[in-house]
Amino acid sequence: MVIDTNFYMKLALDEAWKYQGLTYPNPAVGCTVTGKNGEILAVEAHKKAGSPHAEVEALKSAYFKLTNDKKILNITSSSQIHEYLLENHNNCFNSISIFSTLEPCSHIGKTPSCATLISKLGIKKLFVGSLDSNKEASGGNEIVENSGVETKNGVLEKECDALLKPFNLWQKKRFVFFKWAQRLNGTVDAGIISSKKSRILVHAMRDVCDLLVIGGNSVRVDRPTLDARLVDGKAPDILIVSRNKEFDETIPLFNIKNRKVIISDNFSVLDNYKNIMIEGGENMFNLSKNIVDYYLCFLSLQIGGNNNFTNKDDKFSILNIQKDEQDIIMWMKQANNRGNK
Amino acid sequence: MVIDTNFYMKLALDEAWKYQGLTYPNPAVGCTVTGKNGEILAVEAHKKAGSPHAEVEALKSAYFKLTNDKKILNITSSSQIHEYLLENHNNCFNSISIFSTLEPCSHIGKTPSCATLISKLGIKKLFVGSLDSNKEASGGNEIVENSGVETKNGVLEKECDALLKPFNLWQKKRFVFFKWAQRLNGTVDAGIISSKKSRILVHAMRDVCDLLVIGGNSVRVDRPTLDARLVDGKAPDILIVSRNKEFDETIPLFNIKNRKVIISDNFSVLDNYKNIMIEGGENMFNLSKNIVDYYLCFLSLQIGGNNNFTNKDDKFSILNIQKDEQDIIMWMKQANNRGNK
Repeated sequence: MVIDTNFYMKLALDEAWKYQGLTYPNPAVGCTVTGKNGEILAVEAHKKAGSPHAEVEALKSAYFKLTNDKKILNITSSSQIHEYLLENHNNCFNSISIFSTLEPCSHIGKTPSCATLISKLGIKKLFVGSLDSNKEASGGNEIVENSGVETKNGVLEKECDALLKPFNLWQKKRFVFFKWAQRLNGTVDAGIISSKKSRILVHAMRDVCDLLVIGGNSVRVDRPTLDARLVDGKAPDILIVSRNKEFDETIPLFNIKNRKVIISDNFSVLDNYKNIMIEGGENMFNLSKNIVDYYLCFLSLQIGGNNNFTNKDDKFSILNIQKDEQDIIMWMKQANNRGNK
Repeated sequence: MVIDTNFYMKLALDEAWKYQGLTYPNPAVGCTVTGKNGEILAVEAHKKAGSPHAEVEALKSAYFKLTNDKKILNITSSSQIHEYLLENHNNCFNSISIFSTLEPCSHIGKTPSCATLISKLGIKKLFVGSLDSNKEASGGNEIVENSGVETKNGVLEKECDALLKPFNLWQKKRFVFFKWAQRLNGTVDAGIISSKKSRILVHAMRDVCDLLVIGGNSVRVDRPTLDARLVDGKAPDILIVSRNKEFDETIPLFNIKNRKVIISDNFSVLDNYKNIMIEGGENMFNLSKNIVDYYLCFLSLQIGGNNNFTNKDDKFSILNIQKDEQDIIMWMKQANNRGNK
C-alpha cells in the first residue's frame, strides 16, 4: 500500500462522507493533520452547520496530541477553539501538514475564517482537494499562501469534488438525493429493513433536508409519519407525488405543526427547495431519474422479502461506502450520465 | 477518528483481506510498520505461498522509507530480503513498531523465521492480533519477547481471528467458502455480472483451491470450463453435485489434463480436500448451508437480470468489504450461527 498525500486525503474523504447529508447548508468537509514525520495527528470532519469546520476540529485534536493540554478538550464552540489555539499554540504546529478536502474558508460567518487561523499558526504545508467556488468563502488558499504556508491544490480533486457536489448544487439551484433501503437479495418490501443505527441516520438527514418527496401509494399503504423523531429533529415539508389527490388526512403525516404537505402530480415544487431527499420504491425511482443527483442505498445483509427493483438499464458508480455493524451504506451516482448534471 | 493501535492493525487487516482466498496453504496476514512518532512506514500483506510473509514485505518497504537504499527494491526472494536487512539495517529500526495480524512465525520453511528476523533488527515494539496455533510456526512471540522487544497480544483479536480462520480450518480439517456474483437488485442470472477485475480474482482463487463445487444444473445450462485461464493457473478438481449422473462429457470442463471431475449426490468427497470453493446459485446455496464457513459476494452496482435469491431466514455479518472501481467484494459469515463452526 502506498502511503502518500492521496492516502491522507482519502482518510479525510472517508471521514467527511460519514456526515454527507447532515451538514446542509454547509458542505461536507474532511481534514487530516499530520506531524513532522508524517504521523497522523487527527482525522476529523465537519458534522453539522454551526459546529466547527473540519480544519478546526482537526487542529483541536492535533493540538491536544502535540501538547497534551487537556483544557482544549472542553472547548466546543468554534470561535473559542480559534481563540484558544491562537493564544496557546506556542509554535507546536510549525512542522505539521493539513490535508483538507476543501479550500479553507475565508468567510467570517457563524465561525471565524479557517484560512486566517491556518495562516497564523505557523503551519508548514496545506494540501487541498477542491477549490471553493462559493463567493463568500473562497480566497482561502490565497490568504494561507500569502502567509508563507506551502500550498498544493488538486489532491484527489475528482473525489473531493464529488464530496462537495451537493453543496455546489444547492448554491446554484438544488441537490436531490434518492434514498432507499434493501436487503442483500434486493428486496425492498415486507417490514423494517434497516438497522436502528441506519434509521437514526435517516432521521438526522430528514431533520436537515427541507423537502422530503414520497409517492402517493407509499402514503396510502404504509401511512408513514416521515418526521425526525429518532433525533428529536424537525419534520421536513412533504411532497406527495400522486395523480389522485385523495388521502386520509387524519394520519400523523398531515398533522405536524409547521410542516407543509403538498400533493402534486409533478416535481415543479422542488424549485422552492434546496436540499431534497426522495424516499421511495421502484416507481419513484423511475419517476425521479431525471432530477436525482445522488443515490443513497442502505443495504441490509439479510436475504428475505419478496419484491426487488426490476429495471433493466441502471448502472451506478460508487462514491463512498461506509459500514456499521449491520448495514452497508452506499452513496452512488448513475454511471450512464443520467442525473449527473 | 481515533488514531491508535487498533487503527494501525485495521490497516493491516484491510490489506490482508485483499489476498484472502489466494494464500493457501498459508494464512492471509497483514502487517503495518510505524516509525518513531507513529508515522506509517508500510502496510503490506502476504500475497501467495512462497512469496515473502507480510512482516518481511512490510519491513522491506519500511527499510526503504527509512534509508532510501534502492537496492532493496530489486530483491524479491524472502531469504534474500532477510539477509539484506540483517546485514544493512544499521539500527534504522530501533524506534519502529510492528502491527501484525498474526504472531510472527518461528518456523524455518520456504522462508526463514520472521520471529528471528524481528528479534535481530532491534525493533522497539510488536503488536499482534492472533496467536498462531499451528504447531510448526508457533512460539514466535516468545522468540521476539526474549530478545527484548516489547510485545502486546490480542490487538483486534476477534477481527484477526476471523481473518485467520480459513487457515485454522484447513489445518484441522477443511475450509469451505461459497462464492456468488449478483447485481445490486439481487439478481444472479442473465449473463456476465462481475467486472473483468473481479473475474480475474475468482480465477486466481480457483488456481489455489483444490476443489471447486458446482451444481449439475449449472453444468448442463452454462457448460462452464471452470478453469483459471485468466491467470494462467491450474484448473481445480471439480465436484458436480447432482442426482442425475448423465452429462455431455465433451464440454471442456471434463477434458482438462490432471483435473479430476467427480459427480456425486452428496458432499462426502470434500473430506479429501482442504481449500474448497463452491460456486453456485440459490439451490447450491441452500444445499451447502451446513458445510459453508464463509461467503464471498461480488456485488455489481447494476440493476438488471430476473432472478434473485428468495430464502427467508438468512442473515450475514460482514467480515470485510473491498471495492474496485465497479464491484464491491464482501466476505461474510452467517450471523445466525449457521456454518460458524
